[in-house]
Amino acid sequence: MASNMNAPAEIGSYMLQLGERARAAARLLARAETATKDRALAAIAAAIRRDAARLMAENAKDVAAARAAGEDEAFVDRLSLEAKSVEAMARGVEEVAQLPDPVGRISERRVRPSGIEVARMRVPLGVIGIIYESRPNVTADAAALCLKSGNACILRGGSESVRSNVAIARCVREGLASAGLPEDAVQVIETADRAAVGELLRMNQYVDIIVPRGGKSLVERIAAESRIPTLKHLDGVCHVYVDAAADFERALHIADNAKTQRYGTCNTMETLLVHRTLAAAYLPRIARILLDKGVELRGDEASRRLVPEMKPAAEEDWYAEYLAPILAVRIVANLEEAMEHIARYGSRHTDAIVTEDEAAAARFLREVDSSSVMVNASTRFADGFEYGLGAEIGISTDKLHARGPVGLEGLTSQKFVVFGHGEVRV
Amino acid sequence: MASNMNAPAEIGSYMLQLGERARAAARLLARAETATKDRALAAIAAAIRRDAARLMAENAKDVAAARAAGEDEAFVDRLSLEAKSVEAMARGVEEVAQLPDPVGRISERRVRPSGIEVARMRVPLGVIGIIYESRPNVTADAAALCLKSGNACILRGGSESVRSNVAIARCVREGLASAGLPEDAVQVIETADRAAVGELLRMNQYVDIIVPRGGKSLVERIAAESRIPTLKHLDGVCHVYVDAAADFERALHIADNAKTQRYGTCNTMETLLVHRTLAAAYLPRIARILLDKGVELRGDEASRRLVPEMKPAAEEDWYAEYLAPILAVRIVANLEEAMEHIARYGSRHTDAIVTEDEAAAARFLREVDSSSVMVNASTRFADGFEYGLGAEIGISTDKLHARGPVGLEGLTSQKFVVFGHGEVRV
Repeated sequence: MASNMNAPAEIGSYMLQLGERARAAARLLARAETATKDRALAAIAAAIRRDAARLMAENAKDVAAARAAGEDEAFVDRLSLEAKSVEAMARGVEEVAQLPDPVGRISERRVRPSGIEVARMRVPLGVIGIIYESRPNVTADAAALCLKSGNACILRGGSESVRSNVAIARCVREGLASAGLPEDAVQVIETADRAAVGELLRMNQYVDIIVPRGGKSLVERIAAESRIPTLKHLDGVCHVYVDAAADFERALHIADNAKTQRYGTCNTMETLLVHRTLAAAYLPRIARILLDKGVELRGDEASRRLVPEMKPAAEEDWYAEYLAPILAVRIVANLEEAMEHIARYGSRHTDAIVTEDEAAAARFLREVDSSSVMVNASTRFADGFEYGLGAEIGISTDKLHARGPVGLEGLTSQKFVVFGHGEVRV
Repeated sequence: MASNMNAPAEIGSYMLQLGERARAAARLLARAETATKDRALAAIAAAIRRDAARLMAENAKDVAAARAAGEDEAFVDRLSLEAKSVEAMARGVEEVAQLPDPVGRISERRVRPSGIEVARMRVPLGVIGIIYESRPNVTADAAALCLKSGNACILRGGSESVRSNVAIARCVREGLASAGLPEDAVQVIETADRAAVGELLRMNQYVDIIVPRGGKSLVERIAAESRIPTLKHLDGVCHVYVDAAADFERALHIADNAKTQRYGTCNTMETLLVHRTLAAAYLPRIARILLDKGVELRGDEASRRLVPEMKPAAEEDWYAEYLAPILAVRIVANLEEAMEHIARYGSRHTDAIVTEDEAAAARFLREVDSSSVMVNASTRFADGFEYGLGAEIGISTDKLHARGPVGLEGLTSQKFVVFGHGEVRV
């Protein structure tokens, strides 16, 4: 299909067709029963398992093409599907089936003086456009989350993964059909032409929300270009602040974990802030732990006097999302200075305080304006599974709609429903 | 000020100053106690009452200029402040003080298997830009709602009302200062230069959300131009569907009220849909009531056979938001056809069914994708006061974040808060 669809007009009409079909499917999916959606999810998982060999064969073509195009091993690693990752995809879809269905849930019902009863009902958003990099497992994950939350979706993975994505989508569409749901509830953009993304971002009559997943430059470009609201996550510049009233051992344990449990995740600590009264005792200890694990430390002058192995931190280090074994370190005078630093340099993702002082904890929780704010816990907990949301479509650092890990509920919104008995306004 | 600020560069730096000040004020306001905010609101109301004569004098200058510029009486009417409307503004501010403060409220607290406790906390959005027409009372209303919800705001009323708005803002800022809150939490754009709006819509580093209030063309233009998420309401093409199982008297009462209680409001019925089994009995009766009140009826062919006084409805009538004593009327075969009509021509604002059939009511509530969906009640109830939200900043027909009347809660979002005891990820 990609080969005979190079003219912009053809891409345009192809995308509009996807949009129209998605909108029609969304209306049917919005009214589907939970049991029907769960039956579809089970059938999708079964189809993925049954087709494991075919999925891996299609994926092998993508991998060969990526290698031929000179992509590096990290890229190929994210792109590759093995037996284990196919099984993980199937299990992920089954786990989504186990999650409670938010659609149709009624809350906050109350009788008003006029006699009407007002309540709110959770409903799907409609059509979700998801743009992601060459990670085929996202195709199954995203399709499952959208389906369970009653939304149709249009999926656009990295062009290097198009054969894998089309093969996975075949399993998804078969599962939908077997449960009597519209196949077009999940559509994969089958052309590698990048113009398709531009079209998608302008189809606001058909697409209700865009979820860009990937590196910062991809997300920034999509958000800037989109005429449709986006649910996104730019940077994860996460802080741990070790307060004057911190439990010393906890502070070591948490900072170590927040930095070293995984280096490449968005909820990894990138800057450590330490209260000055604790710095002389604490900094050499935590530095030893981190240096022994091969973490490069970049500190302000005061920190470097306590830990000579530290390199000097430049202004840009405070803004840096390293995603690597590097940590910026700064000594602060007090809680206010720590919160000032976070407000100025942070990315509103996840920030933690280590303290036994309840008043300090309460202020930090209330005043730090990030999607997740923590007391005495590792920033690495900022995650849909850890929070009990189940799988997540992403982590939002936006302030509207949904902040933090976005699961099924974040793919719905609430409308008002009114139960009357003939009431009219006077 | 307006006179010496015509160069684009000057407007730009003026707006950036407003933005910086708003951002700084927002951080202080976000942490303000409820009692402090309520004290400020009481002081604002007192200042408005005390300055009533000055407010009316400044307003008189705006009115004179508008008359000189040839604005019509409806325009002048919306612009004018009289003793009664000044008192209503003061009382409106006091009523906002009475509303519960959503900020800091913690919900959904639960312990996770890891030991951490996860909860959600309501927090202000930050800085809100509000763009409205020449209705000075919006200045006080919007300022009060933003203040109570812990948000700073930048207000831009119609340029014909700038003297009135500046005078009202003086009262607001005095009230803020008297409670020890930053005056810059409420700023009015003091230049009449329209370029200021363009600047505001691009200041996404300082402004978190734009609320455009006004006619459809204003709102559309702002939404199209804005680089900042908007909370908006385009059309109110509201429907009442009289089902086969409708209570006849209720159906008359509700349709009459939904159309004639006020013609110019966004929650007024614009199209009446009637099930065909009821049409022969119902349509002539409701038509008589509406025609006697001077409502022009525009019907499909089947309706016109039953009510000869009806004019023929053209395709564009089904899309029309008349805001006037005109009503489109159509006979439908069943509930599905009614819902199809609403999905195709409606604006997702407010739609009602009149029926005694619980299954039909449940389907309508669930499947009609509008911000308010009602059973056996007049569409005119779609309103923040009627729903118990208190004053509203507007009615959202968007699908993300907030749908329907938006009160204090819609000006906040929820972040995750985590209470740990030294937990780390394994």
